[in-house]
Amino acid sequence: MTRMVDVIEKKRNGGLLTKEEIELFVEGYTNGTIPDYQASAFLMAVYFKGMEPEEQAHLTMAMVESGEQIDLSAIKGSKVDKHSTGGVGDTTTLILVPLVAACGVPVAKMSGRGLGHTGGTLDKLEALDGFHIELSKDEFVKQVNDLKLAVIGQSGNLTPADQKIYALRDVTATVDSIPLIASSIMSKKIAAGADAIVLDVKSGDGAFMKTMEASKALAESMVAIGEQVGRNTMAIISDMSQPLGNAIGNALEVKEAIETLKGEGPEDLTELCLTLGSQMVVVGGKADTLEEARELLKEVIENGQALSLFGDLIEAQGGNRAVIEDLSLLPQAQYQIPVAAEKSGYITKMEADDIGIAAMLLGAGRATKEDEIDLAVGIMLDKKVGDYVEKGETFATIHANAEDVSQSTALLLEHIHIEKEKVSPPALIGDVITK
Amino acid sequence: MTRMVDVIEKKRNGGLLTKEEIELFVEGYTNGTIPDYQASAFLMAVYFKGMEPEEQAHLTMAMVESGEQIDLSAIKGSKVDKHSTGGVGDTTTLILVPLVAACGVPVAKMSGRGLGHTGGTLDKLEALDGFHIELSKDEFVKQVNDLKLAVIGQSGNLTPADQKIYALRDVTATVDSIPLIASSIMSKKIAAGADAIVLDVKSGDGAFMKTMEASKALAESMVAIGEQVGRNTMAIISDMSQPLGNAIGNALEVKEAIETLKGEGPEDLTELCLTLGSQMVVVGGKADTLEEARELLKEVIENGQALSLFGDLIEAQGGNRAVIEDLSLLPQAQYQIPVAAEKSGYITKMEADDIGIAAMLLGAGRATKEDEIDLAVGIMLDKKVGDYVEKGETFATIHANAEDVSQSTALLLEHIHIEKEKVSPPALIGDVITK
Repeated sequence: MTRMVDVIEKKRNGGLLTKEEIELFVEGYTNGTIPDYQASAFLMAVYFKGMEPEEQAHLTMAMVESGEQIDLSAIKGSKVDKHSTGGVGDTTTLILVPLVAACGVPVAKMSGRGLGHTGGTLDKLEALDGFHIELSKDEFVKQVNDLKLAVIGQSGNLTPADQKIYALRDVTATVDSIPLIASSIMSKKIAAGADAIVLDVKSGDGAFMKTMEASKALAESMVAIGEQVGRNTMAIISDMSQPLGNAIGNALEVKEAIETLKGEGPEDLTELCLTLGSQMVVVGGKADTLEEARELLKEVIENGQALSLFGDLIEAQGGNRAVIEDLSLLPQAQYQIPVAAEKSGYITKMEADDIGIAAMLLGAGRATKEDEIDLAVGIMLDKKVGDYVEKGETFATIHANAEDVSQSTALLLEHIHIEKEKVSPPALIGDVITK
Repeated sequence: MTRMVDVIEKKRNGGLLTKEEIELFVEGYTNGTIPDYQASAFLMAVYFKGMEPEEQAHLTMAMVESGEQIDLSAIKGSKVDKHSTGGVGDTTTLILVPLVAACGVPVAKMSGRGLGHTGGTLDKLEALDGFHIELSKDEFVKQVNDLKLAVIGQSGNLTPADQKIYALRDVTATVDSIPLIASSIMSKKIAAGADAIVLDVKSGDGAFMKTMEASKALAESMVAIGEQVGRNTMAIISDMSQPLGNAIGNALEVKEAIETLKGEGPEDLTELCLTLGSQMVVVGGKADTLEEARELLKEVIENGQALSLFGDLIEAQGGNRAVIEDLSLLPQAQYQIPVAAEKSGYITKMEADDIGIAAMLLGAGRATKEDEIDLAVGIMLDKKVGDYVEKGETFATIHANAEDVSQSTALLLEHIHIEKEKVSPPALIGDVITK
């Protein structure tokens, strides 16, 4: 019988683990027969020696099989899921769900809340008065078959192995291992029932992956896992050196999503949604090429179908669809406080992380699971990198429910850099990774 | 406050740990505030990233300070200890204790039993009828001051951190890390009160370190630790591709030790004792050069002082000193079974490990802590590598208390290789490492 100590030693020596050896680790650690101390030594060996795509695929599927798996086979068509590795002001999910569904791709989305500068997709949806995210499995399937879209909260015991392994990685300095990150993300998408997966790997100061090189390696790992496990997977690398779009905050981002579905959103956010959406439409089998898919997406924006479908989603899940025409129905913060430039010049850098913290300090995000989110607050950026600003001109507006916003203002003034020399805005799409 | 996860990450990234960071690990792990899973991740990071001499010195001293430390300051002169990394037929301690003491270097030896092909020094001494290894601390000190030598069993809570860390390494594939091995050995010697340390690092198939390169790295690490912590330390690399000397077994090795003290021992064992003994005499301050020390050692063999002092040791600790003149007083096995060569030729290889197992199967050693040792049994090698043997000639003799020794005989026939071509015996001393 294979012993865990031998599996650790094999990986430590750079060996290629078999499916059985990886299952021994995942199953044993999940059911408690393999102790924490062997699991952490193994994870550190993986940190140093890496994993080949087939090992990552075995790890992914073993984590999928450790818990419940959502069966979406009753939904007709190829179910496409999208995952973003997270950044500041990332409203893409709210836009992509109706946008892609309007092209005929069924979108059965399970979303989370999570920690961060602003809430998760579920928090943002709660800015829509009456919207509820609890549907039974049958209601969920029926709604996707009827309307092509539904968004619910993650429920059930999905990938318990991944949860347990992640908690251990967090305290043993083994979080930033690309094979472990890639397997963790892919296992959650597959357990949630995805047939095809589109990945948005953020790169830059405001992202988990700080460099293009690391982002690319992560994207390639996930696409390779997808290929191994028979899930059509594509990835893009997108810029997160500055916040995406102009809105950072829950209701503010819903507003921005609605504007984008009307064709009136910020240029970068719109472009990212068209890029990711094209991939989703292609892997969902509703277009043969990315160009064809992009035309389809532009069409459903222009003819109002995407926005109308967002209205259908809101209505189906208990909200008031009138919000799509009347944005004043969204929660409004009590104070709108402009932040003015202290000198004239070009914006050369907007440090995404610090701007996110400025929003969190207003109450837009959670630092711990217990924190309450204030859905109305946040920051609107009036300028982005490359823009010119006059001394005294407003370049950002703070939406707050408290009068004293000095901490957030100071962060914005410090981390939004204004210089004499003009710089070009960063390239939004760094790379596109397909198998 | 420094957190353990940061210490793990620092080492993982190849950083140089401070004394405080290493103490955080050792103290925290020993007292249970740092969990197993962080300790094992840390040890795996050390496996991959190594440790500089100053880090190994901090680790060594933190383990020393984790438990009791033997205070030998009441013994006059520089207390020298010797450590061997273990091999087959290694009787050097029994010889070196009286040999070096006869040159005026006080030898306050704490020995163990341990697992292996034959027993430890304590087991071997128990082949001397009546010999006891329990002395109070005062009796121990007095005897070393009076006679220059005493051998007792290890008692007290020495280096509990090392014990706990070693148990974890054993199940997490982090045993074979040179900085961890070096710190473990050095911590035990220092806690046992050594002022100066001579190390015999075995190299070859029958040793823990299989290659000259690894043996040299371990020896250099230990000498560097010794220098950092102010303990004069020297090391030699000695051959363990074939068993040392001719005897493998407890009473058989005592007999061989007595013969060696008379100047009638096997050539390799005698040479190794003179080499190690010279270092002990030099670090013990009783000679200025290794050559001078060697002359002194030869003198106390020739004039009978070394043997006589061994008699004094036996007498002082309850045994019968007559054994040094009458070897028949040692336990004798019931059967002496010759093993004959199946063909004529030169002995080209004697695989130490397998020959050790042949002895253990007779009852000479312990596989588990609970096993009883049969002190009388073992194997005498009549030939060594490089010797010629005729077909039908005895090249080894099995001493057994059971008639059926077929398993051991088969091992000897399989692992003692006889070929047409003559080979030279392996070099006994591979290298000498001093700071």
